[in-house]
Amino acid sequence: MMVTRHRSRRGRTSATNGRKHFGGKDSWRQWTYPYNYLEIFSADQIEAIHTASLKVLSEIGIRILHEPSRRRLAVAGASVGDDMMVRLDPAHLMELVSQAPSTIALKSRRSDCDMALGDRRLAMATVGGPPFYSDLDGGRREGTLRDFDNFCRLAQTFNVMHAIGPNVEPQDIPINVRHLQTSRSQVMLSEKIPFLFFRGHEAVTDGYEIFRLAHGLSEEEFRKTPVCWSVANSNSPLQLDELMCQGIIDAAEYGQVMVLTPFTLSGAMAPVTIAGALTQQNAEALAGIALSQAVRSGAPVIYGSFTSNVDMRSGSPAFGTPEYTKAAFGSGQLARRYNLPLRSSAPTASNCVDAQAAYETQMSLWGAVAGGANLVLHAAGWLEGGLVASAEKFIIDIEVLQMFAELMCPVPVDEESIGLDAIRDVGPGGHFFGTQHTLDRFETAFYAPLVSDWRNFETWRDDGAIDAATRANKVFKEVIATYEPPPLDPGRLEAIDAFVAHRTAEGGANVDR
Amino acid sequence: MMVTRHRSRRGRTSATNGRKHFGGKDSWRQWTYPYNYLEIFSADQIEAIHTASLKVLSEIGIRILHEPSRRRLAVAGASVGDDMMVRLDPAHLMELVSQAPSTIALKSRRSDCDMALGDRRLAMATVGGPPFYSDLDGGRREGTLRDFDNFCRLAQTFNVMHAIGPNVEPQDIPINVRHLQTSRSQVMLSEKIPFLFFRGHEAVTDGYEIFRLAHGLSEEEFRKTPVCWSVANSNSPLQLDELMCQGIIDAAEYGQVMVLTPFTLSGAMAPVTIAGALTQQNAEALAGIALSQAVRSGAPVIYGSFTSNVDMRSGSPAFGTPEYTKAAFGSGQLARRYNLPLRSSAPTASNCVDAQAAYETQMSLWGAVAGGANLVLHAAGWLEGGLVASAEKFIIDIEVLQMFAELMCPVPVDEESIGLDAIRDVGPGGHFFGTQHTLDRFETAFYAPLVSDWRNFETWRDDGAIDAATRANKVFKEVIATYEPPPLDPGRLEAIDAFVAHRTAEGGANVDR
Repeated sequence: MMVTRHRSRRGRTSATNGRKHFGGKDSWRQWTYPYNYLEIFSADQIEAIHTASLKVLSEIGIRILHEPSRRRLAVAGASVGDDMMVRLDPAHLMELVSQAPSTIALKSRRSDCDMALGDRRLAMATVGGPPFYSDLDGGRREGTLRDFDNFCRLAQTFNVMHAIGPNVEPQDIPINVRHLQTSRSQVMLSEKIPFLFFRGHEAVTDGYEIFRLAHGLSEEEFRKTPVCWSVANSNSPLQLDELMCQGIIDAAEYGQVMVLTPFTLSGAMAPVTIAGALTQQNAEALAGIALSQAVRSGAPVIYGSFTSNVDMRSGSPAFGTPEYTKAAFGSGQLARRYNLPLRSSAPTASNCVDAQAAYETQMSLWGAVAGGANLVLHAAGWLEGGLVASAEKFIIDIEVLQMFAELMCPVPVDEESIGLDAIRDVGPGGHFFGTQHTLDRFETAFYAPLVSDWRNFETWRDDGAIDAATRANKVFKEVIATYEPPPLDPGRLEAIDAFVAHRTAEGGANVDR
Repeated sequence: MMVTRHRSRRGRTSATNGRKHFGGKDSWRQWTYPYNYLEIFSADQIEAIHTASLKVLSEIGIRILHEPSRRRLAVAGASVGDDMMVRLDPAHLMELVSQAPSTIALKSRRSDCDMALGDRRLAMATVGGPPFYSDLDGGRREGTLRDFDNFCRLAQTFNVMHAIGPNVEPQDIPINVRHLQTSRSQVMLSEKIPFLFFRGHEAVTDGYEIFRLAHGLSEEEFRKTPVCWSVANSNSPLQLDELMCQGIIDAAEYGQVMVLTPFTLSGAMAPVTIAGALTQQNAEALAGIALSQAVRSGAPVIYGSFTSNVDMRSGSPAFGTPEYTKAAFGSGQLARRYNLPLRSSAPTASNCVDAQAAYETQMSLWGAVAGGANLVLHAAGWLEGGLVASAEKFIIDIEVLQMFAELMCPVPVDEESIGLDAIRDVGPGGHFFGTQHTLDRFETAFYAPLVSDWRNFETWRDDGAIDAATRANKVFKEVIATYEPPPLDPGRLEAIDAFVAHRTAEGGANVDR
């Protein structure tokens, strides 16, 4: 039943049996970054930030609110004070960090949706966790499971999406069973790598069980096979709370992927300088990674970066700013310093799907991609500083991601592609439309857009002068209308449904510990 | 009278004597690219494109429609056929190209607006030459001198603009005197490097005379002092027309800057492949540069790149596509191969100032900047594939350019900026808003936006839910309303006005030769 489906090699412009295909090229499934990295700091400057962050952890320390985590770190050699402050000396810390793997292979139910992270491999994940949802039809409102499911459908449809972020918060589902429903939705509706919130030991192990069942793995196999991912945010500055610590321990023990992302908003939860904010980001990320390695040496972890700045006039967070992009470049240098995979993001502060949303997102995305990120969370659908998951923004982000994916593909240079004979045949003042060199290639020569309208002004105007956001709304609805779920073994589905029913009957999970 | 005016160091948020300042930081005046270049081709691939383009020029040749230019090239060693085809053997061609300077210093009337091109120096120019103008108040209509002048005012106002492109075509001014009015406007309204179209020997020398008078230079001094720039487009494929050739000769003889830009639209006027289109671009650019050097060894020239692709379904040109960005990266590698300054662009095909306009422009701009361009034409105001110069697009582009300028500024990393003491003082779970480290820096720590709205959703909604394009319209009108012209010596202005009156009375220029 686990048949790999073969998709059209072409974008949505090609139709097979009258149906549109939105996935685009197979080459977009696996990204390898082929360019130089953009680096903002000298090697000396990176060492200065590294050294300062080790000082933070050895002299100031980090407050760990979770007793079992303090105990684990004490066993690994950390000094623990009565004030829950944990101090790690530099040698101990680096010894723990060095145990983390430099590459991670996440398994999908479909082999060409496996996700390798590390080195030059790059993967994109949907927006994560906004409480609100918006589209042009219904406006802005609280997120629901239906919205969550639709983002799973979008993630499944587009070849440039490799993983699901937590999409949108389905506020219509009680919090104690929400993890059951979202985990089930992800495996029912998509073969892309699913996400699980750290909302207490019970919720995490429930989610892991659903993912294990979907893959048909034994418990022993599951612990050796990363199939999902989670984010642990430090409570910046210099604090890790109980839920995050418990999640770090659970992920390490179950061999599932954990991203340690400090929320170092420069000027608020971190120093007002980029150097200071990155120093604090680095200290917090390394502390969380050290905890993970103290639990299980070699546990799959990712260095998370999310350093941005606040608007000093309003206190509002800003994203896609020059400071954001510089911090993203610097984070790449730091992650490479430790040989760790890097997670970055593509956020914007804009309140609607306008030019600001597009240019801020792209500033963030270039920071992530050219900075050397391996996993980009919030790569599609993020709006309003992360408070809203937007249907139209998702589609427009997909367009940009497809353009980036195409930018990663090599350009052939050989006698055939240079086409000296075609240049000779066409000659001065001629045109290439009808030449054989063009006819042989025109169907696949160029990127075919999803949202962009390249028609001339008069045609565009006479067709209603429809802007990109409104066109994206139409694409969104077309994708949802033509979506087909991936195959899932009926026996596995039955087991998942039985588990969900059983745990729901038990009252779900205690999400406070 | 040529007083250098001192501007506020801060962006528009600071006010001096109640007036807003839009110029932003002084550090945005001179850009130096600090990052690695993004390169798409291996050294071998660049050599293959180089070699193929030399073959184009030695075997196929380029059609030169201008008899004096054919003569100049013949004198320099080219073979000229009866069919106006000029063939240059590789050694001759490279000998001529090698005479072009690797850096160019353009002089402004104001020393901190001088423009150095080459190496890692980067400069931005306004949109060039659309026949139409649009703003949200009056919609889309034919361009006028008033619109042209307003773009000069914008260029003068913003520190991130270094040169004027030809802005918009003032169709209300007869073509035979249009160059007189636009040249006068540029020196009256701005100190940024002015632009002159190649519209025949008379128009070019008229423009040069106005720029010479504005600088108060002798004729001899003028020929040694680049103060303005022009673009020669080849009529791709493989053709140079009479006006362009005459302009190349005039610019070389007068020592003024000439950019040779082939219009190699892949799939139409150039091969459907990137390698083929770049081969043709390279051949055409090198031929024009060779002509310039044959006229005057060491004449200041710039390698122009504008390779993009057509939409193969409609034949419409597309911009900011992945192919465009790849070609921009490749063009940087080619220009560096010849040690020539590079001109690139920041175009989009969008018909309105929406998300598409923003993401396509930014794809182009990253191609230009990270590709190693030294001069970016159409960096502000381009819309609709170059048919429209848009007031709102100009302002939104300025915002993005300011973000790029800030991205070029180094990040301090030292004990002070890392701020270990601040991290220690704030401690776990605290915040940095009120610390001395923040108070000392908050006014200048972060980029202050021009258009971006970072307020929360409720505040933004209650204030009218105004999108970026509408906000840009307001900024545009504020800039024009508060604009003040730069100083210009009254004697020089009198001389310019007398010259314009005299040439107008003579019937202006013959713009056909």
